[in-house]
Amino acid sequence: MDNSNIVDLRIKKLRELMSENDISFYIIPTSDPHGSEYIDNAYKTREYMSGFTGSAGTLIVSKNEAALFVDGRYHIQADLETKETCISVYKLGIDGVPSVKEYLNNQTVPEDRIGFDGRLMMEDVFESINGTVDATFDCELNLVRDIYENIPKSREEKIIILDDEITGESCESKIEKVRIFIKEKDADGLFLSSLDDICYVFNIRGSDIAYNTVAYSYAYITRESATLYLKRNAYDESTTKSFDLSSVNIANYEEIEEELYKIKGKKILLDKEYTSCLFYKALSVGNEVISIKNYDVIKKYIKNEIEQKHARNYAIADAVALIEYIVSLKSSIHEGFEVDEYFAKEYLTSFRANMKGFYCLSFDTICGYKENGAIVHYSVNKDSAKELENNGLLLVDSGAHYMGATTDVTRTIPLGELSDEERAAYTVVLKGNLKLMDAIFLKGTRCENLDILARESLWKIGLDYRHGTGHGIGSFLNVHEGPIRIGYKIREDMPQPELTPGMILSDEPGYYAAGKFGIRHETQLLCVKKYETEYGEFYGFEPLTLVPFEKDAICFELLTAEEFDILKRYSDLIREKVMPYLSEDGKKWLDYNTNFID
Amino acid sequence: MDNSNIVDLRIKKLRELMSENDISFYIIPTSDPHGSEYIDNAYKTREYMSGFTGSAGTLIVSKNEAALFVDGRYHIQADLETKETCISVYKLGIDGVPSVKEYLNNQTVPEDRIGFDGRLMMEDVFESINGTVDATFDCELNLVRDIYENIPKSREEKIIILDDEITGESCESKIEKVRIFIKEKDADGLFLSSLDDICYVFNIRGSDIAYNTVAYSYAYITRESATLYLKRNAYDESTTKSFDLSSVNIANYEEIEEELYKIKGKKILLDKEYTSCLFYKALSVGNEVISIKNYDVIKKYIKNEIEQKHARNYAIADAVALIEYIVSLKSSIHEGFEVDEYFAKEYLTSFRANMKGFYCLSFDTICGYKENGAIVHYSVNKDSAKELENNGLLLVDSGAHYMGATTDVTRTIPLGELSDEERAAYTVVLKGNLKLMDAIFLKGTRCENLDILARESLWKIGLDYRHGTGHGIGSFLNVHEGPIRIGYKIREDMPQPELTPGMILSDEPGYYAAGKFGIRHETQLLCVKKYETEYGEFYGFEPLTLVPFEKDAICFELLTAEEFDILKRYSDLIREKVMPYLSEDGKKWLDYNTNFID
Repeated sequence: MDNSNIVDLRIKKLRELMSENDISFYIIPTSDPHGSEYIDNAYKTREYMSGFTGSAGTLIVSKNEAALFVDGRYHIQADLETKETCISVYKLGIDGVPSVKEYLNNQTVPEDRIGFDGRLMMEDVFESINGTVDATFDCELNLVRDIYENIPKSREEKIIILDDEITGESCESKIEKVRIFIKEKDADGLFLSSLDDICYVFNIRGSDIAYNTVAYSYAYITRESATLYLKRNAYDESTTKSFDLSSVNIANYEEIEEELYKIKGKKILLDKEYTSCLFYKALSVGNEVISIKNYDVIKKYIKNEIEQKHARNYAIADAVALIEYIVSLKSSIHEGFEVDEYFAKEYLTSFRANMKGFYCLSFDTICGYKENGAIVHYSVNKDSAKELENNGLLLVDSGAHYMGATTDVTRTIPLGELSDEERAAYTVVLKGNLKLMDAIFLKGTRCENLDILARESLWKIGLDYRHGTGHGIGSFLNVHEGPIRIGYKIREDMPQPELTPGMILSDEPGYYAAGKFGIRHETQLLCVKKYETEYGEFYGFEPLTLVPFEKDAICFELLTAEEFDILKRYSDLIREKVMPYLSEDGKKWLDYNTNFID
Repeated sequence: MDNSNIVDLRIKKLRELMSENDISFYIIPTSDPHGSEYIDNAYKTREYMSGFTGSAGTLIVSKNEAALFVDGRYHIQADLETKETCISVYKLGIDGVPSVKEYLNNQTVPEDRIGFDGRLMMEDVFESINGTVDATFDCELNLVRDIYENIPKSREEKIIILDDEITGESCESKIEKVRIFIKEKDADGLFLSSLDDICYVFNIRGSDIAYNTVAYSYAYITRESATLYLKRNAYDESTTKSFDLSSVNIANYEEIEEELYKIKGKKILLDKEYTSCLFYKALSVGNEVISIKNYDVIKKYIKNEIEQKHARNYAIADAVALIEYIVSLKSSIHEGFEVDEYFAKEYLTSFRANMKGFYCLSFDTICGYKENGAIVHYSVNKDSAKELENNGLLLVDSGAHYMGATTDVTRTIPLGELSDEERAAYTVVLKGNLKLMDAIFLKGTRCENLDILARESLWKIGLDYRHGTGHGIGSFLNVHEGPIRIGYKIREDMPQPELTPGMILSDEPGYYAAGKFGIRHETQLLCVKKYETEYGEFYGFEPLTLVPFEKDAICFELLTAEEFDILKRYSDLIREKVMPYLSEDGKKWLDYNTNFID
């Protein structure tokens, strides 16, 4: 049975269950109980039901339609993966395409019953739907469980506890800051479900979700106590003892729901974006729940000096790995070895894994050759991997966790001769990457103010990329770290903090010529103070990523003198920092690509 | 008695009255009963009491202090004008300087009584103070009346009624749109106090406030009726008859308060930014008041085709006037005539007044030579006017109302030899003006996204200007027209609409070297659709202002090739549009300044 028939069959089964339960619409979001962005296999029900493998999207099944809502990153991929199934793809961001909320509002009547699994629906999403849609909700209905027979078990590995030399701040100090916030808000406690916030505060790391260094956990911090809920296999006696020293109690993850129902008469802070609507309900009974944003209390997005030091150091290691990889991959292809996207992707991991301090990849490497590069979040499949040739562009978006830092870098590698269109596109995207990298701005500037620097060169010729220009990056934590996001849309629901020294973010404009090639240049940046004048403090960026752009792919005549100057300064920095650690071949390649004298 | 003693005496008198009325803080905002930006002399109480002549600012008098709060435009001027008085200047926008709200919150105790004249305090300002400050308010206390003996009378001139050929849309059609909005909001009526909104909807113009083409008025539009309240001298029988045709009732302005108290049991829409807290109170009794933004219902900031046509045509007239003026002024100075700032300012008006369709100036011309150019909103005084010489920079910010369009343009005129610093600064500001003028952006972009294009060249060398980059401009209406404002601060209280074809706004970066010179380049722009691709609709600007920048003031080596290209295209446009209408001398000057072949 082919994939399309399997999906249609599953939808059919779901419709039967919906009918039995008197449900007219069933929502399957992409989520786990913690509102995580990356979802462990144990929670990939949306993928199972729709066949669409992307990392984000919402499936809404009704009698008449199985509607899959995907954002700009997945417009092409969702079409491809749901081809010949009953799934209709709704491409969010395109004029006239309704949002999930609007869709439900248009399609439902007050008599309808809408069902979903409330453990996997975060409170903020639920409230936004509930606020617009006039229907009844059943939020304790896990219908997929009866269709998805062999749901994978989630991993429950033992956590690691990090030294202050890695984190730069003790768990006690971080908890103290949380308590100051609790007191300021005149509250009793803060309930945390967001895994990266918990790992940050308690200085622990895990590997329960692929590519994320987090452990399944909850935490409840009050003015007097702090309890960390971990999976049973994630800790042992030594963990408990170690946390005793910081006055942190360890408790069982499985008991959290029960524990929540025991809390009464308290004023509790929580972030609705990361709290499931079921848990929100549990806490609402007998307590006053106050909605906050976790990033307002846990400011992990502003890196301390130690975190910045690790970011700088591991950026060199990461660059060495990526440069040696590029050199070696190119020479393999030129020597006639059979190399496909899948091999190219796996091969890169081996270079990073050799680096001291390597922990694991920070996300599944995207390795798209030619037209596959135009699929923004392309996931290569062993069987369908494209053979690499002596020409065209290979887009490689990759990164790793090191013991103290996380990397995320995209370079688009010319494997040989390029078309004029490819070189022009490579250069136009490069202009944006360089301009953003070189931005100087006054204190008070926000990400939305800078976005146009990265997009302008594309907009001027009627092009664009349908994704953000950048995102925050954790320190040995999630590769997408909120709330930072560079984009031009000013979203009242996601207010950006002012750009502040210590923030680490990506600078990743792109251009995707569907069916032909894709280009993305992603450079990790650290926000730093540049100077102070009578007008105030001026900030800018220090590039962390130290991998050069490739000379043969650049149309120098399209660069302005200013852009060429930024490129030269960036290239000089790379030579200075990375050259000493490279092999002879690596040195030769770096020299060629950073030397603009000839 | 010198000015400083007069001010101190007035403050002393106010303190006596405060003491008699048991008032510990008295607030004097800069406002009239309509929340107008430009204030008629009849309402200039803040100026009278503080000696500060700027167009915005708040004075708060207590026993210990007379605190004047001014924004970035007036930091220098307020210092100068209040020198040697008891006034303390609070420079808003500088780190650590409290806002009016914060100041009152810090300085007052719950026992304090804060007084002000509620006719001149808009409801939104009052609510924001009332929401943070724990004290008692007396909002019916006009203490200045007893100090300000000869308060000027306000003008009450007869209104003019505009043809549809000037406005592009009939009064009936505009009222119909208001009614659709009222129905959408499920309300009974809309109360309007903002003068430009009223003039726009009813297609009338007046001259009650200097430089503004508005008439003192109120309006109340319901589902069935529309009443326009005008000053008794502003209309006659023919006005009433003419409005009869549009089913609009004319009533007496003076009766409005009484009328408001008669409205009961209604659901009334109003904009708190333009409704005095006394009127708000009046309407709140027995009605449901719903807060809206007038610009959400009266979209005058998007100009129709006719308004755009007038804007283009009158821009040519305005450019001819300004160019001929520049040529003539320069030649007068070169020929040795004694010319000072005051003459220079008045002289310009005579050129504009000659133009067909001229109505009046759109604001008091700013004409600042050398160090006076650094005072952002410099107002020249006949006695202290600076003599113009054969060197240095003269900043001229001016504009006019024509029968269908309003202009606002700043050019900084080199009167002869310039220092290297002046030329460099002229050029750095020019870069920003050109980059913003040439911006291309996707539908969905807002003003805050574009601001950096104008500021970047300054920020890169640690400089800035402490004012917005641009503002909306009316069509034969207020020269500052909300809600459009180009700035980098993203203000939740003033959300910018998406940039939309038909918007007219200014592009006016500057640089002010205190004590030396000031530079501002202001070009009026019309937002237009540029092209549409698979990525969506792309917008950009058509420059309306057609006055060239002066070649002798530009350091061409500081312009990038891209910027030079924008300058050339802009100059070519000016030649094409304006050359035919110029005198021989004008032609020669324009040719020189727009010809870059040599």
